[in-house]
Amino acid sequence: QERVENKTPLVNESLKTFLNTENGRLVAGLVAEFLQFFNLDFTLAVFRPETNTFTGLDGRDNLARELGIHEGDDLKGVPLLLEVIKNGQQKEKGTCPSDG
Amino acid sequence: QERVENKTPLVNESLKTFLNTENGRLVAGLVAEFLQFFNLDFTLAVFRPETNTFTGLDGRDNLARELGIHEGDDLKGVPLLLEVIKNGQQKEKGTCPSDG
Repeated sequence: QERVENKTPLVNESLKTFLNTENGRLVAGLVAEFLQFFNLDFTLAVFRPETNTFTGLDGRDNLARELGIHEGDDLKGVPLLLEVIKNGQQKEKGTCPSDG
Repeated sequence: QERVENKTPLVNESLKTFLNTENGRLVAGLVAEFLQFFNLDFTLAVFRPETNTFTGLDGRDNLARELGIHEGDDLKGVPLLLEVIKNGQQKEKGTCPSDG
């Protein structure tokens, strides 16, 4: 049912461009951290070559620092992406402090 | 019959538990959306069976709605995860926009 059309080029230009941006690397790092967190080793084994990010992505500690997430006890048991989303949701819910 | 070394359990219990939560499915959906966005078809072909999420994850439109992200022209060219991270950064920087 799925049509294979317009096969992916050997170099994924849009991803390459994305990974050259700071936030792009952050996003890819968070995806890799999610995969590592849940030991999705088979997916990682394909993700790394397909994205050409064998060693280049930040690890959990660096990602947390860049995102301003503080690794407390609460955070040990969750992938960073969950924390990122929760932060966004807090904002949605209007818990953003007003400037007064 | 082949014997497979019992390294990774066939059912990833921690991931299964995670995917049974609302935010867990949101996170996994965002990861899948990232992979789809950049046509990482090989990674997706492993991700889906490894996470057992062949059809169960929300697509981009539903994810955006759940996250309260409005699909503007700006957003068409980026994976949702980038927008999620940007939102978090705006919060960090204290540029939280007032409603209205």
